[in-house]
Amino acid sequence: MPETLTDSPIKARQGRLVSALETAGLDALAVNPGPSLAYLTGLHFHMSERPVVAIFSRHNAPTIALPELESQKLDGLSYELKQFTYGEDLSTWDAAFSGAAEAAGIAGQQVGVEPRSLRVLELRLLENAAPTASFVTGESSVAALRMIKDESELAMMQKATDIAQRALQDTLPSVRPGVTEREMAALLIQNMLRNGSDGELPFQPIVAFGPNSANPHSVPTDNVLKEGDLALFDWGANYRGYFSDLTRTFAVGDVEPELIKVAEVVKQANQAGCRLARPGISAGSIDQAARGVIEEAGYGEFFIHRTGHGLGVEVHEEPYIRGDNERLLADGMTFTVEPGIYLPNRGGVRIEDDMVVTDTGSRSLSNLPRELIRLA
Amino acid sequence: MPETLTDSPIKARQGRLVSALETAGLDALAVNPGPSLAYLTGLHFHMSERPVVAIFSRHNAPTIALPELESQKLDGLSYELKQFTYGEDLSTWDAAFSGAAEAAGIAGQQVGVEPRSLRVLELRLLENAAPTASFVTGESSVAALRMIKDESELAMMQKATDIAQRALQDTLPSVRPGVTEREMAALLIQNMLRNGSDGELPFQPIVAFGPNSANPHSVPTDNVLKEGDLALFDWGANYRGYFSDLTRTFAVGDVEPELIKVAEVVKQANQAGCRLARPGISAGSIDQAARGVIEEAGYGEFFIHRTGHGLGVEVHEEPYIRGDNERLLADGMTFTVEPGIYLPNRGGVRIEDDMVVTDTGSRSLSNLPRELIRLA
Repeated sequence: MPETLTDSPIKARQGRLVSALETAGLDALAVNPGPSLAYLTGLHFHMSERPVVAIFSRHNAPTIALPELESQKLDGLSYELKQFTYGEDLSTWDAAFSGAAEAAGIAGQQVGVEPRSLRVLELRLLENAAPTASFVTGESSVAALRMIKDESELAMMQKATDIAQRALQDTLPSVRPGVTEREMAALLIQNMLRNGSDGELPFQPIVAFGPNSANPHSVPTDNVLKEGDLALFDWGANYRGYFSDLTRTFAVGDVEPELIKVAEVVKQANQAGCRLARPGISAGSIDQAARGVIEEAGYGEFFIHRTGHGLGVEVHEEPYIRGDNERLLADGMTFTVEPGIYLPNRGGVRIEDDMVVTDTGSRSLSNLPRELIRLA
Repeated sequence: MPETLTDSPIKARQGRLVSALETAGLDALAVNPGPSLAYLTGLHFHMSERPVVAIFSRHNAPTIALPELESQKLDGLSYELKQFTYGEDLSTWDAAFSGAAEAAGIAGQQVGVEPRSLRVLELRLLENAAPTASFVTGESSVAALRMIKDESELAMMQKATDIAQRALQDTLPSVRPGVTEREMAALLIQNMLRNGSDGELPFQPIVAFGPNSANPHSVPTDNVLKEGDLALFDWGANYRGYFSDLTRTFAVGDVEPELIKVAEVVKQANQAGCRLARPGISAGSIDQAARGVIEEAGYGEFFIHRTGHGLGVEVHEEPYIRGDNERLLADGMTFTVEPGIYLPNRGGVRIEDDMVVTDTGSRSLSNLPRELIRLA
């Protein structure tokens, strides 16, 4: 990330964050390593036993508490970021966090945090550093910024999609009876890296054969591919911190007729969801459109998850494509449309595309065939 | 993990946890997805926006709150685990967490959590589910169990080490002037997968050329390898959830004489630390031995991190090899010894091995040469 982003979008993002905090009635936002920290600073830290927290205040320059041995990462920043480092001695942690909290001026203030990212480790350090501050949910402030992608972000997501698509095409010739899920997952990862993915994948690919494909969150095992199986791939690449997330399902030889029918229903559900995407439509209505097709075909009870989720610097982010989400879609939002039907102990089909809302409608970043293709 | 562990070590671990909680004065332990949950249940969950928490009580059977769509993972468990699932509707979360908390009987109790893993998301759900419970640090109870590896765990760590070593050997022929850090990191990952690593690597490999090698936590960039550079690799593989973590540094053509001298000092420091490892010696004394060699050579100020860390199902765990750590080493502990010297803007050398304490001494899982080898 530091290599591809100039500082000016970073400054712009920090400026937009200040407005978003004002709207949310928050004085500041405290973030630990993860997608939001990278998005707001251009700096790449890993979550580890050595805590890092950046504090963005509406009233003062941003501050960061971090280990001394990571401080080189801050060299040459062109925006102001006050740093407070600690050493290998645990007793030096509190001083760094107090320094960052005081310079940000958060005493007595409402400080937003991201509950899905901030750990008890960082929370307790912040509470010690600013005992009179209130730490509340600030997730929506930064989510609102991240949700709208600019052209350079969309270009990186297109690249991540292209890489993933080529990687699957390079992998399919090896998918034949006798291979295991684990082998094919490893090969798919290798093919993503070979095609230019960054090493830190958005998630471990799901490769699920036969009955395992009926588990939406299956993990690759030594299960061997057999004639008559469905073979489901759910995978994505990372290009400079931006992700793709796709799913395609294949038939290996002759599969039972009902699974072929199910695949057609899922394709129609996917297309119904994708077609509807445009500015001003609610996220929930995309779910309803896709789900409606599946319910009408009599498989409603076998579509056991939401239709999709936002995508970008995180693999699951706003806007969530859930029936009850009234959020209106807008130009620059990106999300998956991934309906599925899962017949327990028999097989499951899911088809997932990555959509971008444009000023007048939407387009798909992904274009691999959606038909149930029969492999060798 | 579910594939390689029978339930009996899992039951044994849960039994040992009960004793460890008693020792620590805790009634229960609440864990979210991560290495400890896998270690204590044999179940593999990812941390996501859908929270999962398992509660291990001294007084009642273990419970777990999880999303409905992940409940298939619990099929066929041979130990008791009371499950409380929630659906896609956010309003169903609280009931699942209350169910798990009540069945575990944690009201009014002292409940340990892992501050480096548990997120504010799960903490708030637990606090709502059991408002009279106290959530305190319980890290050391589970760390104490995980620290001592049995033979099957050591066999998996040896495998992870062998895979990593072969992967580096397969990569070195491509390391020549003109390649970038990013390219070599991608190739190294591919070679780990090809040699049998699981896809979820313990960490993204560090590949750092020239001045970048002077930053211990460098991230691979488009920096191009040049004649006269040091080339540092810090990488590890994953075999069935068990990790390796190695570092070696190479000279590309003629490097400046002081860096050659530094490499020799680091090798001696590494060997001083490794040689000392045995039952009854403190973790801190390993750090002191390695650091002493570097200080004696006049480079103390350039060794800016601790000498190592425990290794196993997590890349950094107990025992930390830090000068102030009085913990005594014992049979079955595994940790890295990785001294380094970093000359700013010139280059750095680190040599890292993975050690196992045995009943009478110690042995190294890794055996790649520790000399500064000159590449082509």
